Amino acid sequence: MRFFANPAQAGHCPGFEFFRGKRVPCFETPERFHFVEQALREAGCVLEAPAAFADEALLGVHSARYLEFLKGAWAEWLATGNEGDAFPAVWPGAGMRRDRLPQNFAARMGFFAFDTGTPLAAGTWQAARSGADCALSAAQSLLAGELSAFVLTRPPGHHAGIETFGGYCFLNNAALAAQALREGGASRVAVLDVDYHHGNGTQEIFYARPDVFFASIHGDPMTEYPFYLGHADEQGEGAGLGANLNLPLPAGAPAADWFSALEQALEAIAHSGAEALVVSLGVDAWEGDPISRFRLKTRDYATLGERLRRLGLPVAFVLEGGYAVREIGLNVLACLHGFEPA
Amino acid sequence: MRFFANPAQAGHCPGFEFFRGKRVPCFETPERFHFVEQALREAGCVLEAPAAFADEALLGVHSARYLEFLKGAWAEWLATGNEGDAFPAVWPGAGMRRDRLPQNFAARMGFFAFDTGTPLAAGTWQAARSGADCALSAAQSLLAGELSAFVLTRPPGHHAGIETFGGYCFLNNAALAAQALREGGASRVAVLDVDYHHGNGTQEIFYARPDVFFASIHGDPMTEYPFYLGHADEQGEGAGLGANLNLPLPAGAPAADWFSALEQALEAIAHSGAEALVVSLGVDAWEGDPISRFRLKTRDYATLGERLRRLGLPVAFVLEGGYAVREIGLNVLACLHGFEPA
Ligand SMILES: [Zn+2]
Ligand SMILES: [Zn+2]
Repeated sequence: MRFFANPAQAGHCPGFEFFRGKRVPCFETPERFHFVEQALREAGCVLEAPAAFADEALLGVHSARYLEFLKGAWAEWLATGNEGDAFPAVWPGAGMRRDRLPQNFAARMGFFAFDTGTPLAAGTWQAARSGADCALSAAQSLLAGELSAFVLTRPPGHHAGIETFGGYCFLNNAALAAQALREGGASRVAVLDVDYHHGNGTQEIFYARPDVFFASIHGDPMTEYPFYLGHADEQGEGAGLGANLNLPLPAGAPAADWFSALEQALEAIAHSGAEALVVSLGVDAWEGDPISRFRLKTRDYATLGERLRRLGLPVAFVLEGGYAVREIGLNVLACLHGFEPA
Repeated sequence: MRFFANPAQAGHCPGFEFFRGKRVPCFETPERFHFVEQALREAGCVLEAPAAFADEALLGVHSARYLEFLKGAWAEWLATGNEGDAFPAVWPGAGMRRDRLPQNFAARMGFFAFDTGTPLAAGTWQAARSGADCALSAAQSLLAGELSAFVLTRPPGHHAGIETFGGYCFLNNAALAAQALREGGASRVAVLDVDYHHGNGTQEIFYARPDVFFASIHGDPMTEYPFYLGHADEQGEGAGLGANLNLPLPAGAPAADWFSALEQALEAIAHSGAEALVVSLGVDAWEGDPISRFRLKTRDYATLGERLRRLGLPVAFVLEGGYAVREIGLNVLACLHGFEPA
């Protein structure tokens, strides 16, 4: 297994989230990276820096105007007389237009955002951009014959859509890896999202496409973030109909239900004709996670890894959520060891 | 002219807006009401309390689920363990669903909101609801033969859509008055919005309807709030095609341009067959307004009033924006006196 670690992640370190009318400390912190890094090093894993890819490599997933906005956002935020982290404050509500991008910076920020929990800081673009390089490097390694790779990165990616940021995510690393695998020769690819939260961004990116199958097991959006996507009736559209499988479970669902959903997802993936698999490996389905409500134990992550190995597909694991800080490393390692015993 | 003044407005008094990542004092304050009230009383106007209408009277403009949300929001906010003003923190971004309303309170709040500058406080529903009663009372008075009425109220209404709140607005008073005039027998009604900001809510409410003509003169949404609606190419849809006229002007446009846009709007209103007119009377197009960038003088508001009188239609004036506090009363009075010399 190859391990690509984001060298610029620490640059993304906003001071707070705006949540329920209050400024609260961020859940998504550089510490998360260090706990996983520590666990991997202690297990003898060799962490590599990613190769550097051109921005154009992101255009298969994200829109040009979105990338342009993210890249210049911090400078614009400062130039319009602000200081401190950049937050959206206005956005297109129901009945408002998304076909015309306003000039006003605050309006553009809201146009691309969908929550006030994902502020932009000075190093955000670089951190997210290097994470994308890690994802592309992981895909490249599978295309070159590796059987597995792991992307150690933050900020996470699976909530980032074609041109939306939120849920701590800016660039969709899992989708970038899947797209690179397709462009590199895999005729069909699958993405399995085991993060507690639905991978709305990944779903949106591939929703009308038959060549990338997306399956997600997550907390029911009626009560769990991201609230507005992730229902079971979302099965793809147009040519992509049938290539999207949402398996929402009620908050508090027992591990047994989670694993039966996993079987359903893996069966569909096996039938999808996928030649490679990307796993959005959030570990916030762990029982101790502070913001999630599933009940997996660390040994369940080992079982997950073993089960994925039996699929017989090359796999790129991409770190997504998981906020219990210290245990995040143990749960990631359990899954990777389950997949590929040291 | 009859004057209906909102007795419950002071109950809407949130502590701050969340703007550019900072908590800033609210621009839309009870003081605004008192300055207009003072100017009207000094001019000898008699201010009346509104009649009380049933909530059902709002269903011609707002959706039932929206009204249900607004009515119960404060209690739900407290019940979910919050204190202080209620702010949205997550909302449906691009590619996310608006056909299913989540259960989660924060998610429902974001579903109905489109900015973080319009917090909900303890008395918000009652203040907005009494404003609606004033608008309905004004319409009732025109239907009973009055030639003009003025609604002194806050929070304003023209940014509130079928089921969206933002721009300091919760219930769309001007739209409620227009709908009541239609239901009361006027075959066609027109709404003229002279507030600096586009009346996106009023436009959305009547956009597919031929029986209510909407015209708005406002700062170009490319650079001015509400940013995502108000372009000149928005002319109505379906049966309502041709019954929507947006006249956006660049920030800083001179009064002469504003008045030529007014002529265009009044000509269209005259041709619309309207039997009654509702005027969204924001006075933030005044040169001294702190958050707007037109250059009308107080005497220009008198000219506006005179020009409206020449239309020969019964008119219900509804107070919208205007944040220069003290001068807001002078500018409102100038317009009303221009329309109906004391
Ligand atoms: Zn998550
Ligand atoms: Zn205004």
